[in-house]
Amino acid sequence: MSLKTGQEYLDSVKSLDLNAHILGKKTGELSGHRLVEPSRRAVAFTYDCAHHPGTRELFCVESSLSHDVANRFTHIHQSTEDLVNKVKMQRYCGIHTACCFQRCVGLDAANAIFSTTFECDRKHGTAYHQRFRDYWRWIQQEDLVVDGAMTDPKGDREKRPKDQADPDLYLRIKERRSGGVVIRGAKLHQTGMLNSHEILIMPTLTLRTGEEDWAICCAVPTHEKGVHHIYGRQASDTRKLEKSPGDVGNPAFGGQEVMTVFEDVFVPNERIFMIGETDFSGILVERFASYHRQSYGGCKVGVGDVLIGATALIARMNGVSKASHVQDKIVEMIHLNETIYACGIACSATGEKSPAGNFQVNLLLANVCKLNVTRFPYELARLATDISGGLLGTLPSSAEMEDPVAGPYIRKYLAASPDSQTVDRIKVLRLIENLVAGAGSVGYLIESMHGAGAPMAQRIMIGRQADLEGKMARVRSLLEIG
Amino acid sequence: MSLKTGQEYLDSVKSLDLNAHILGKKTGELSGHRLVEPSRRAVAFTYDCAHHPGTRELFCVESSLSHDVANRFTHIHQSTEDLVNKVKMQRYCGIHTACCFQRCVGLDAANAIFSTTFECDRKHGTAYHQRFRDYWRWIQQEDLVVDGAMTDPKGDREKRPKDQADPDLYLRIKERRSGGVVIRGAKLHQTGMLNSHEILIMPTLTLRTGEEDWAICCAVPTHEKGVHHIYGRQASDTRKLEKSPGDVGNPAFGGQEVMTVFEDVFVPNERIFMIGETDFSGILVERFASYHRQSYGGCKVGVGDVLIGATALIARMNGVSKASHVQDKIVEMIHLNETIYACGIACSATGEKSPAGNFQVNLLLANVCKLNVTRFPYELARLATDISGGLLGTLPSSAEMEDPVAGPYIRKYLAASPDSQTVDRIKVLRLIENLVAGAGSVGYLIESMHGAGAPMAQRIMIGRQADLEGKMARVRSLLEIG
Amino acid sequence: MSLKTGQEYLDSVKSLDLNAHILGKKTGELSGHRLVEPSRRAVAFTYDCAHHPGTRELFCVESSLSHDVANRFTHIHQSTEDLVNKVKMQRYCGIHTACCFQRCVGLDAANAIFSTTFECDRKHGTAYHQRFRDYWRWIQQEDLVVDGAMTDPKGDREKRPKDQADPDLYLRIKERRSGGVVIRGAKLHQTGMLNSHEILIMPTLTLRTGEEDWAICCAVPTHEKGVHHIYGRQASDTRKLEKSPGDVGNPAFGGQEVMTVFEDVFVPNERIFMIGETDFSGILVERFASYHRQSYGGCKVGVGDVLIGATALIARMNGVSKASHVQDKIVEMIHLNETIYACGIACSATGEKSPAGNFQVNLLLANVCKLNVTRFPYELARLATDISGGLLGTLPSSAEMEDPVAGPYIRKYLAASPDSQTVDRIKVLRLIENLVAGAGSVGYLIESMHGAGAPMAQRIMIGRQADLEGKMARVRSLLEIG
Amino acid sequence: MSLKTGQEYLDSVKSLDLNAHILGKKTGELSGHRLVEPSRRAVAFTYDCAHHPGTRELFCVESSLSHDVANRFTHIHQSTEDLVNKVKMQRYCGIHTACCFQRCVGLDAANAIFSTTFECDRKHGTAYHQRFRDYWRWIQQEDLVVDGAMTDPKGDREKRPKDQADPDLYLRIKERRSGGVVIRGAKLHQTGMLNSHEILIMPTLTLRTGEEDWAICCAVPTHEKGVHHIYGRQASDTRKLEKSPGDVGNPAFGGQEVMTVFEDVFVPNERIFMIGETDFSGILVERFASYHRQSYGGCKVGVGDVLIGATALIARMNGVSKASHVQDKIVEMIHLNETIYACGIACSATGEKSPAGNFQVNLLLANVCKLNVTRFPYELARLATDISGGLLGTLPSSAEMEDPVAGPYIRKYLAASPDSQTVDRIKVLRLIENLVAGAGSVGYLIESMHGAGAPMAQRIMIGRQADLEGKMARVRSLLEIG
Repeated sequence: MSLKTGQEYLDSVKSLDLNAHILGKKTGELSGHRLVEPSRRAVAFTYDCAHHPGTRELFCVESSLSHDVANRFTHIHQSTEDLVNKVKMQRYCGIHTACCFQRCVGLDAANAIFSTTFECDRKHGTAYHQRFRDYWRWIQQEDLVVDGAMTDPKGDREKRPKDQADPDLYLRIKERRSGGVVIRGAKLHQTGMLNSHEILIMPTLTLRTGEEDWAICCAVPTHEKGVHHIYGRQASDTRKLEKSPGDVGNPAFGGQEVMTVFEDVFVPNERIFMIGETDFSGILVERFASYHRQSYGGCKVGVGDVLIGATALIARMNGVSKASHVQDKIVEMIHLNETIYACGIACSATGEKSPAGNFQVNLLLANVCKLNVTRFPYELARLATDISGGLLGTLPSSAEMEDPVAGPYIRKYLAASPDSQTVDRIKVLRLIENLVAGAGSVGYLIESMHGAGAPMAQRIMIGRQADLEGKMARVRSLLEIG
Repeated sequence: MSLKTGQEYLDSVKSLDLNAHILGKKTGELSGHRLVEPSRRAVAFTYDCAHHPGTRELFCVESSLSHDVANRFTHIHQSTEDLVNKVKMQRYCGIHTACCFQRCVGLDAANAIFSTTFECDRKHGTAYHQRFRDYWRWIQQEDLVVDGAMTDPKGDREKRPKDQADPDLYLRIKERRSGGVVIRGAKLHQTGMLNSHEILIMPTLTLRTGEEDWAICCAVPTHEKGVHHIYGRQASDTRKLEKSPGDVGNPAFGGQEVMTVFEDVFVPNERIFMIGETDFSGILVERFASYHRQSYGGCKVGVGDVLIGATALIARMNGVSKASHVQDKIVEMIHLNETIYACGIACSATGEKSPAGNFQVNLLLANVCKLNVTRFPYELARLATDISGGLLGTLPSSAEMEDPVAGPYIRKYLAASPDSQTVDRIKVLRLIENLVAGAGSVGYLIESMHGAGAPMAQRIMIGRQADLEGKMARVRSLLEIG
Repeated sequence: MSLKTGQEYLDSVKSLDLNAHILGKKTGELSGHRLVEPSRRAVAFTYDCAHHPGTRELFCVESSLSHDVANRFTHIHQSTEDLVNKVKMQRYCGIHTACCFQRCVGLDAANAIFSTTFECDRKHGTAYHQRFRDYWRWIQQEDLVVDGAMTDPKGDREKRPKDQADPDLYLRIKERRSGGVVIRGAKLHQTGMLNSHEILIMPTLTLRTGEEDWAICCAVPTHEKGVHHIYGRQASDTRKLEKSPGDVGNPAFGGQEVMTVFEDVFVPNERIFMIGETDFSGILVERFASYHRQSYGGCKVGVGDVLIGATALIARMNGVSKASHVQDKIVEMIHLNETIYACGIACSATGEKSPAGNFQVNLLLANVCKLNVTRFPYELARLATDISGGLLGTLPSSAEMEDPVAGPYIRKYLAASPDSQTVDRIKVLRLIENLVAGAGSVGYLIESMHGAGAPMAQRIMIGRQADLEGKMARVRSLLEIG
Repeated sequence: MSLKTGQEYLDSVKSLDLNAHILGKKTGELSGHRLVEPSRRAVAFTYDCAHHPGTRELFCVESSLSHDVANRFTHIHQSTEDLVNKVKMQRYCGIHTACCFQRCVGLDAANAIFSTTFECDRKHGTAYHQRFRDYWRWIQQEDLVVDGAMTDPKGDREKRPKDQADPDLYLRIKERRSGGVVIRGAKLHQTGMLNSHEILIMPTLTLRTGEEDWAICCAVPTHEKGVHHIYGRQASDTRKLEKSPGDVGNPAFGGQEVMTVFEDVFVPNERIFMIGETDFSGILVERFASYHRQSYGGCKVGVGDVLIGATALIARMNGVSKASHVQDKIVEMIHLNETIYACGIACSATGEKSPAGNFQVNLLLANVCKLNVTRFPYELARLATDISGGLLGTLPSSAEMEDPVAGPYIRKYLAASPDSQTVDRIKVLRLIENLVAGAGSVGYLIESMHGAGAPMAQRIMIGRQADLEGKMARVRSLLEIG
């Protein structure tokens, strides 16, 4: 077994023949597609890091399943140190790609399924855990990208899955056969799906007795028959298709989301890790969500680092970096960004061993982490906008640079600090625009709000995990109230 | 004299032959240009309102210059009631266009120049005031759109205009002739310029002795020889050019900004309202800025109303409008929006008569108003993002609706509350996207930060206007400290 | 008729023989009581201002009832200008007393009862309005202090008045006699009660059919038989009783609250302004609350001015006033304080004439005003604490100044900027402590939260008043959604 | 060697004969003093925990100096786990005392001096480290309380120590003798000083060449000749002296601060750990401050737990605990409190081994931790005030309970939920008042702002530690800017 390089990864997904629909067109070959390429490069970065001398140590682990080397992005966490290192690795990738690198969802799904199947087997006598170990050992050995698929469309939010006008609005078992099941439904907001080899499907909420048909956890290849991917638009996405690529902002990397439809997809038994055990659906959701809320304590911090660096750079280029209010705002950006990081680290360092042997994050602190992620990136974006100046919203197109009249005027009038070039100033502004109001803002702002659950989901978990009764009991005791 | 209708306005700008550069192409005829059209329609709305029975009373005033009827967008304010009505009119336009309707800058410039020229004449014996009255009476009679042009490129922010490597980085008098002057330079962030007939040029900062060549206030037609306009990109702007216009978000209206270059433009004497009186440059800047900071207490509130309405609507369509946390967030949005409005009203109601006879806003409260505008729309956008759900960032293109595979899947899986249509839900999401991360966010977020000056400019004014010494004196008196 | 001076007011309340209980002792004569005196002086200030040349114009009005001169603190507002002037007057008193001056509650109650009785009469054929006009003309002529009494104890918040274990937990009519009624109950948080001549009792919530016994609005003298006042403790209150008064902070003025019990108090018919008309209870509560929420847009801003002035002064005394972060924090304090003021002005300037002829505040903006009052003073207090330095919490007692060892050490070691005296520095610190953590914080912080209703009450009103349906309709129209 | 019990500790400080000045009186015997007792009990709690079975494991460590058992409050940290456990121990103490338990300052000073002396010796060939090891082994063996003394009065903040009008405004070496030195000066804000056996004096800022006389680090007994302690007042402190102790709020524990004067105090050589090495003054300050900023990530969180518990309890007693806005506010309190905790844990878990062998916290994250401490407790206090209701500011004295008239009225009218007693409700309200506006607020709010340095100190450190240049370099690399 050997870990893939970035190029080997790119080759491996080149051969996948996905059913993708992009901007109204069916598109089979995605490797040359300029809307998809940047997001593939971001995934490839996670492969290359396992080979570079400076990062190899952080990105390579010994697999607990095969005792062979594995990429940490496929690791079953063996210690709190592993949890901490996951966050560090994510921050590192965020800093270097300035976008979502998409490979965490599968990692978080795997660790959640690993421990949940163990406990499910213990209670119900099922045999999911070994089956999952086998499946995941294969993933590690092939060094694949796996997308975790949780969010169902949900239809009318006031109704349960079985009460929806259309039962498919929550992905469900349509038919049970001897060798497997047929599923139907859709999963929304699937980041990285077009760059993945495999999909781990999980239920989206705590199911109740009578809702067994929606309690399905299984693996499906991304190119399986019946699987359709519909591209989700991002702000300014088509700038990637323009002749002058200068307006994209992030010249190399990007994120991507799709809506994935499962139209009567057959799943063989060996790829099923839960079927009908509604009592473990909530546990699975909660664990996956908490791992993923931890993840944001790394990746979004890394993107935040980029935004901070770009803001400090534009301040310098604008000639205002010595102004005390500018320095103060940059310190505030750092402070907020590091507060998120502290939460990512803390929920890892106080993690605990599960009965299955892998390590779980501290559920309370992971949710606290994510709730801060739904707030602070917005304030970072606001402060970056403040320091960048109005040009952030009124910058001419890079296409103008070729215009014989407009080009020279832009060079002349957008010159700022003598130490920097106008074209570089424009590049930095476009990067900031990408993150606060462009394609990158989908990952940095909207996903920070909704990824791994909207804020209310975290608040509910925080309320549950905080031992409020215990706090009240201690007050009673202090005050000698009976 | 009769007020133009929206159509008459559109006809009037159709005949202007502007030197415009858009996305790398020189473009003479803008009326059919789909990137410009929505912003023209927004301006046209301000004309139509002067004719509609329900709004005529608010939009029509008696001109103080001609005693004829005028559109309030060209009014020289005669009372605090006029100031209050200006804000109400702006909120009204904001609600109905969901964007910047561009006609306030000229109004604010006119009122600032009106009082400043009066005082300048009184001190220096110049004759600018009558000249400006004549000019502005013509504007009122012709019912024209005037863009105020203040923001110079500024180059190296650590240097004064005359110390810049290139003296043109602040617009300046290049040559003085008997009948007028030749000016050179550029003005950035010019909202509405492509839809304006005239430009009122003003200096961008308080000038000092020795900087007379930069102390120029004058009027120039937008199509004057030597005037070049370079289009500023907005997020997702080219969605307006796509075949399926459904992804634009705001189906009818939009804003637009350009960078305008003045390449040796001749300005005749009768169009000059300040030339060299550096001691009045700061006063002019301060007054214009304060009027414009008041303006935001109306227009941004109106756009905020749209965002609140759209958020309430998507909550209902998603089936979550009864959730207490959703209701609470909508109340918070209203609260913040109305706080801005209160500041707009308050700085108007406590305005004062200038020596020239027109009314000025309360400088302290106008700056307080704007400083809140640099904060609260960001929180409204964040809350709207929260309530909208993740689809805000992952919605497929409307072009997919025609795709025989993707279209039906989208209709099936994005159905939500039974009381609403999927296509309507998509429309509302696209409108919200427009305001929080699309073309509309340039006006609603970036302009809220930087229009009429970045936050630090307001802070400086607040510090100056607040009579801190008086507050300390009262404390000394209360404490009987000598 | 002539307006009382402060001294005449003090004499007038001296003769009242109240049933007061203070710190476990029944106390008849309050004029000499050092816990009460500062609050009396604050009320007296409102009388003196009607005589001082510099303030007479603001504080004196022509009574609409008698056409005689009246103190604005007893005025039935005749215009939006009157509403604006009320706020200005309150800010003025706040700046000069640094505390609650207690006379607004009665003013706000009177204006609410004035319009509500008019409408009640029109609907029910009752004759309350003329009765109230007569009563209030007498108040104006005698220039009395009236306390408005609204907040009932409420007992179990989950139950209606009539379902309480003890029906007295909401003040009620215990007995109806031919000449009047007997009432029983209590009113909490009665600011200024010990310094008032009269009490206007109002219901505390919207009552329903079947709850007529709680729908009582009437006037009772503060010294009436059966009325008992129980003193509410403030932080550090007994510093007022110490030999060295230097630790009090505010050397002259202070606020005070009591719990007032009505033990079978007889109220004659001519003092009853509502009895049983449950359908007007909610209107009365809403109007009173809104007037009082407007009031905070003046008084708390005035106290905020004191806190800002004291903070700027201590910064200067500490020698840090030139530090940019200190200046920035003071600007922030001003900004927040003026935002509240803007809301106070705006809800006044957009007020409307009631059917009864007096002017009501804009209900939406008055609630927005108060909701900001529940937030911003806390941030002002936090920033003042930041700038003051740790001494705010560790300052030795002024009694130490007489200690032969400690006194000289304090003078030596607490000397700061050479331009100020150590004793003056201590005075300023004690004033700030008074407002952020002492007796003054009851008025500036706790009352800012709960006075005129807790934040949730404002949120409910904001949600109701904001025309959310109208906003949604405009969005539907813009998007052409059916 | 055996660890003291709480009682043994109390006995040990009873015999100390301190020069204390309290409220204008010299006071030798403090053990019976009701203003001091609660703070002694809080310290005693840290002793008892080393004996209780449930806490022994957390509070007892193996000393790295003697390999004997020691209380963790005197531990030289040997691992990141030790750093994490320190924070957990502090949170535990905070929850159980609801106040500052005072024993961390010495612990933090010891760890800072431990590593700084090591490095100083290595550079300068001094022998401080072994001297300090000997001293601290004795502290561990005797199980003593040590106060760290850093904050000098500072006089005119714009001047250096040697430029002050009075050179004593920074504590300094007045005279050097063969066997030791004589020092003079004062240290402010000394929490726990009256309950300590020993003082570790440190400089307050980075000193420069020429300022050697102020570069002194040494140990002095609290009862040494020439040492004077002057009591700092807290809000409502004298409630502890009243007959009815019910108004104190915290019935058992409390904090205390003094100003300590060193009037020509002789320090023998073996107690000196730095004398004149100005180049290590800044390092010592920075390390001590960072350890102490970490500490707040534990202790203030514990007090926050009490405030949350009390708020949840009063909500239940008031009958509003099911209201969604109440639940939401409590979740917000928990979220903010846990965010601080996460920072405390994170700066510990990412700590590093110093050259001397003990473990240092992550400097960046420790400062981030403290900066959050200067904000979030204020918001917790505001939310607690919101939920508590207005009674928080108007509650009658507990002395009234004995009044034959007032007592029964209070019992009758302050009854709320049938499941709780009025007296218990009052107790909970008084505890909350203690923390948000009473004696406890000195520790919970003012100390949270200023303890271990005001916010600006943390901001400077954050700016320095954040590797801004590195972030900019990565952006340059991403954008391929030279």
